[in-house]
Amino acid sequence: MAVYTHVDDKTLSVFLAGYNLGQATSFKGIAEGVENSNYFLETEKARLVLTLYEKRANPDDLPYFLDLMEHLAKAGVPSPLPVRDQSGKALQTLCGKPACIISFLNGVSVDDADESHCAAVGSMLAQMHHATSDFTAARHNDLSIEGWRTLADKTVAHADTVQDGLAEIIASEMDFLEQNWPKSLPKGTIHADLFPDNILFTNHTITGVIDFYFGCTDFLAYDLAVCINAWCFDQQMHFVPGRAKRLIEMYDVARTMSGAEVAALPILCRGAAMRFLLTRLYDWLNPVEGAVVRPKNPLDYLARLKFHQKVKDTAAYVV
Amino acid sequence: MAVYTHVDDKTLSVFLAGYNLGQATSFKGIAEGVENSNYFLETEKARLVLTLYEKRANPDDLPYFLDLMEHLAKAGVPSPLPVRDQSGKALQTLCGKPACIISFLNGVSVDDADESHCAAVGSMLAQMHHATSDFTAARHNDLSIEGWRTLADKTVAHADTVQDGLAEIIASEMDFLEQNWPKSLPKGTIHADLFPDNILFTNHTITGVIDFYFGCTDFLAYDLAVCINAWCFDQQMHFVPGRAKRLIEMYDVARTMSGAEVAALPILCRGAAMRFLLTRLYDWLNPVEGAVVRPKNPLDYLARLKFHQKVKDTAAYVV
Repeated sequence: MAVYTHVDDKTLSVFLAGYNLGQATSFKGIAEGVENSNYFLETEKARLVLTLYEKRANPDDLPYFLDLMEHLAKAGVPSPLPVRDQSGKALQTLCGKPACIISFLNGVSVDDADESHCAAVGSMLAQMHHATSDFTAARHNDLSIEGWRTLADKTVAHADTVQDGLAEIIASEMDFLEQNWPKSLPKGTIHADLFPDNILFTNHTITGVIDFYFGCTDFLAYDLAVCINAWCFDQQMHFVPGRAKRLIEMYDVARTMSGAEVAALPILCRGAAMRFLLTRLYDWLNPVEGAVVRPKNPLDYLARLKFHQKVKDTAAYVV
Repeated sequence: MAVYTHVDDKTLSVFLAGYNLGQATSFKGIAEGVENSNYFLETEKARLVLTLYEKRANPDDLPYFLDLMEHLAKAGVPSPLPVRDQSGKALQTLCGKPACIISFLNGVSVDDADESHCAAVGSMLAQMHHATSDFTAARHNDLSIEGWRTLADKTVAHADTVQDGLAEIIASEMDFLEQNWPKSLPKGTIHADLFPDNILFTNHTITGVIDFYFGCTDFLAYDLAVCINAWCFDQQMHFVPGRAKRLIEMYDVARTMSGAEVAALPILCRGAAMRFLLTRLYDWLNPVEGAVVRPKNPLDYLARLKFHQKVKDTAAYVV
């Protein structure tokens, strides 16, 4: 949540002159998004979000993300549509930063999802996986298993300062994951970060899917495993079977999983829990000076990991 | 700029049920305002801002501020209108904090004002002073001359760490101000903080005056002196005569100043420069741990103070 780069009114006005959007009628920094500066921008013609990509974003990846959003929006997924300027360009430079205007999406994110929200997320995830079946661009998932090993190595020395024994838990789990991680499940374009704050609901209908900046090419079922971690535990870190059942069922109704995918779900869930445990642990141990955002507690994902470690087979997720 | 208090969707939904606003269709933290948490809130019926008043706000003052905003909005000033719930209450409690829903105002604040912006500000300031002539509530200005003395005492020990000799400049200026500060100018309700970020323009028309949380009872001409400091210096801290001329002229057209007010303008400008020098100096020397906002440079107001000290009479402001 932050606005790292201030865009003054004259700069904005010159920038907007390159579009067919009319003049700005409202312009306010949005306290959302950890990585970038976001502004709510309303013009005479449209409601929009202006994003300036800050240091953590790799500029080389931005065309992929914008193409992905455009592809999804055109396929009917309620994702932000990058707006092209009069010359047809969506990706710009503003205040020395890569920048883009995207459409504004209505809806409110939920903090404590119920089964009906989870059902909607399952359907939407499958819809996205279908919609990207003809999306030809690819991006390596830097935060898949090799990336976790890198993070495990970087955090091992201080992991026990967060919780006694954490370094050993991570080490043995990484060994397990590396020995057992699936090799040949169906791959495609995944969101990879479909947490409640990235879904906007109007009543119980999804009217927005946002933040595609972890989008990449990986196992489709891993995206579902991320959602199980993100949506199916309550605020005390307890697994809520009803939510997972609806999430998985509605995903499977819209995109029938293969037997191998179903069987792999427990290890994919362990991997997804490890991914968020490690990135949170790294951020916790390496706080950014002057950062606006307090690092999230990595132990929330240790609790999830421990749950998944005890799961014998996928049936445990759909009881 | 910040959201200090997170309002979850269920809490928001229960809160909104007390109003006639319908359900939320959008809800996003706004990265604006140093003191409070602000959310952009759109419902089925209206566009609004939800404010939660954080520690620095004195709860006893809030009814005054809301009454002032309501009074101004009803008098045709484009200020936020506090929205009353079904029982007629505007001031609420939400997440344990005082809270209020106010109307959302269109417009964009300007970073580098031109003469036409300053003319509009002068007219609007006079309009506000007229509009509050029948506003009977009063609030002492804690940041008038006695308040500056308190801040001067609190900052004297470390002022020279910011700039060599600053403590002595402040001490002698405070003596001058205390000996010469006017005693009997026309008083009324003033905004007291009418900086560019508190005015929203659509083209060159003012469509929003916001942030009344320094509103108080004081010399009306002091409000104009604040505006001269806030609007009539460029980003290199140079006085821009054309801006001041238009600001003062348009104020005077709409509310004719007395001879005493005109004559007092230079010392009122010195006082206003001192007020922002001291509050910025205090914040600079006492940074809030974990604060989201970087303190503003107090020396910007030392430059203004030095300009005003050299002014012989009000004619210098309207050349």
